[in-house]
Amino acid sequence: MENGNGSHEKWNFRGNAELNTASISVRGVLNTLAKNLNSDDRRPTIMLGRGDPTEFASFWTAPPAADAVSDAVQSFKFNSYCPTGGVLEARRAIAELLSCDGSNQLLPEDVYLTVGCTQAIEIIVSVLARPGANILLPKPGYPQYEARAAFDHLEVRHFNLIPEKGWEVDLDAVEALVDDNTAAIVVINPSNPCGNVFTYQHLKKIAETAKKLGIFVISDEVYGRLAFGSNPFVPMGKFSSIVPVLTLGSISKTWIVPGWRLGWIAKNDPKGILEKSGIVDSIKNYLDITCDPATFVQGAMPQIIERTKESFFSNIIGIMREAADILYEMIKEIPCLTCPHKPDGSMVVLVKLNLSALEGIDDDIQFCLKLSKEESVIVLPGVTVGLKNWLRITFAVELSVLKEGLQRMKAFSQRHAKKQ
Amino acid sequence: MENGNGSHEKWNFRGNAELNTASISVRGVLNTLAKNLNSDDRRPTIMLGRGDPTEFASFWTAPPAADAVSDAVQSFKFNSYCPTGGVLEARRAIAELLSCDGSNQLLPEDVYLTVGCTQAIEIIVSVLARPGANILLPKPGYPQYEARAAFDHLEVRHFNLIPEKGWEVDLDAVEALVDDNTAAIVVINPSNPCGNVFTYQHLKKIAETAKKLGIFVISDEVYGRLAFGSNPFVPMGKFSSIVPVLTLGSISKTWIVPGWRLGWIAKNDPKGILEKSGIVDSIKNYLDITCDPATFVQGAMPQIIERTKESFFSNIIGIMREAADILYEMIKEIPCLTCPHKPDGSMVVLVKLNLSALEGIDDDIQFCLKLSKEESVIVLPGVTVGLKNWLRITFAVELSVLKEGLQRMKAFSQRHAKKQ
Ligand SMILES: Cc1ncc(COP(=O)(O)O)c(C=O)c1O
Ligand SMILES: Cc1ncc(COP(=O)(O)O)c(C=O)c1O
Repeated sequence: MENGNGSHEKWNFRGNAELNTASISVRGVLNTLAKNLNSDDRRPTIMLGRGDPTEFASFWTAPPAADAVSDAVQSFKFNSYCPTGGVLEARRAIAELLSCDGSNQLLPEDVYLTVGCTQAIEIIVSVLARPGANILLPKPGYPQYEARAAFDHLEVRHFNLIPEKGWEVDLDAVEALVDDNTAAIVVINPSNPCGNVFTYQHLKKIAETAKKLGIFVISDEVYGRLAFGSNPFVPMGKFSSIVPVLTLGSISKTWIVPGWRLGWIAKNDPKGILEKSGIVDSIKNYLDITCDPATFVQGAMPQIIERTKESFFSNIIGIMREAADILYEMIKEIPCLTCPHKPDGSMVVLVKLNLSALEGIDDDIQFCLKLSKEESVIVLPGVTVGLKNWLRITFAVELSVLKEGLQRMKAFSQRHAKKQ
Repeated sequence: MENGNGSHEKWNFRGNAELNTASISVRGVLNTLAKNLNSDDRRPTIMLGRGDPTEFASFWTAPPAADAVSDAVQSFKFNSYCPTGGVLEARRAIAELLSCDGSNQLLPEDVYLTVGCTQAIEIIVSVLARPGANILLPKPGYPQYEARAAFDHLEVRHFNLIPEKGWEVDLDAVEALVDDNTAAIVVINPSNPCGNVFTYQHLKKIAETAKKLGIFVISDEVYGRLAFGSNPFVPMGKFSSIVPVLTLGSISKTWIVPGWRLGWIAKNDPKGILEKSGIVDSIKNYLDITCDPATFVQGAMPQIIERTKESFFSNIIGIMREAADILYEMIKEIPCLTCPHKPDGSMVVLVKLNLSALEGIDDDIQFCLKLSKEESVIVLPGVTVGLKNWLRITFAVELSVLKEGLQRMKAFSQRHAKKQ
């Protein structure tokens, strides 16, 4: 290597190329799109690319939740390292929160606190990544699973979600994918990126299929509670008498505080099957060598739950329902886009891009790059979540902003429409 | 697998055995010792096993730092996900903090925020773990490096720290260990577990040796500022014109807030060597697929730094100096222990266990297990940090507690002394 003085220095080290392949992340793609924005455009940038509406006052978290955090930090009782698995009172509060429908009683020891659901994914993928093992992931899905699996050398097998069936799991495909080295199936409900909520019956079928195949269920319920259509949200833990379930979650979406970084892994394992398999020990071992969520946020958790009024959640759900309606109607007016299923949960939806209606746009990435450049609107290319030539649109934004964003998308589509 | 109903179920999954070998962690060992405590002992347990004095009012963090965090959470401006690398104002504040002696000007982009220094270690080990690579670690050292390296399959080579030379690095050994696949050498200064602070001259020699060998330096300065003896703390970044340096740090120890979980990796790379090597890209890629520190703690960082008075640090350093003196004198009175070097930095020290002076105690683990059972005092067995039959003792506790703990250790040693 040539240095500034013209002399030669030899350096041995270099980066880890595996990280480059592992890093197909939502964040990485959004960074690329943001770099492509046109700084001459005087209009505000409209971000429909991620589930983070914290900038809008109408989505601000409940003030009593913020007070609970201030109180915890001011108590000086939660400045220490936390015990492995987290602060006991917080684990208890979350166990109760998750048990509140009475179907499945969790104990504090069944809950492991994590740095958001992001770290919950990191931990569970690491725990399953023994040589030869594989895991079943939904397609489309949440690419953090693929990224961590690539990094940890855990083989991934994809099953389809079927848009025509309201994005239900293709269970025949699941049966065909499994072998003796398959450890688990990941279900995301309410669904990112599809925006649907699974029925009780479909969840039960997933549980029964998993049991039949000898695999357990990882249920990503980070959008739990955020259901505003006809299907109520049913926690997968309800079926833990059929199959062991690890539920992943966080307060990021429900309390609209993704920056607070508190998540969990909850063990729904009434028969002790995960315990006997060594999975629980592996989780504990991993927790001993990784980082924890802030202790005082943990310490605040019982009060965050207790002090937040039900009206906070119902208000958010009301806004989301209205946003989903607006989005669904406005997408109908954009000829190059189709929405196969009106969203009834989460904060995002997938719409199909009809490239034959467009001139000079080859794929979803190009669509998104041009859209950010020309209209200062950011949406996520479907390829990031496993479906090429679809778009993932976040509707968790102020309604006026959502309308403006969709209008710009419409104008963009008209400008690029194929001449008849 | 037999289930409760007598019928047979077949489950395919099992835990990751590699995590069991990777998890020789301080936390894991302390958990084991805590389980061994005698609940009939009415005396309070004395924890001299970890650098976390937050339970003692005399070590409480500066109230303005807590206020800065409350203000940040109450502003509702820091509830969002943070950008890759962290909140810009926080990166700038830390860049300035680390540049304050004027020797090495860091930019905000040189600082990557992490979930404590624990995650900084996790990231840097992952980044270096390409197949075949190796890393040089101090012995004794901080076992988090070994644990992450084992988990990521990064080969570790140990060089000795020499107790007779104030725990300086055995640089001849370093030269003998290196090959073309060696990426970096880790230096911990002020030292955990040894309690020494390296001189300017010795640090310069380490830098020159690394340059000659074509490797870079990872300088763990989590105890930076906590120097109270004759050697002032010198940041390794001062020598970045000789060799590239990644400095790892956090606010855990300096502000006595290990539960706030804010750390960093700072790039001291004026010649752009780490950039060219791909290491910087790998760090950024890893950051895209991992979890972040709480956004509002990041947002508070400029105010945490600005509002904390110098008297807070000088007060803590005063207590630590007194604690080190007390410890050094009291250890002299315990015949089975010798302290080769009076601590002048960090919060911990290593003392040598003379087993021949004891009856019925075979090694450091047995010593620590019996000590916790009989005296309700927890100290860390040296084997955990790489030196069998030594003990790591934390002196960052209230002085009365330290004295009581050492008195109990003395009584224990007398009771177990070999009869002449
Ligand atoms: C399906 C899914 N799982 C996990 C996460 C990560 O959640 P957290 O913000 O709590 O880390 C997200 C975030 O968008 C998500 O959509
Ligand atoms: C040498 C060393 N590095 C890193 C850490 C981890 O620091 P943090 O608490 O900021 O994660 C510690 C904690 O004791 C340490 O002693």
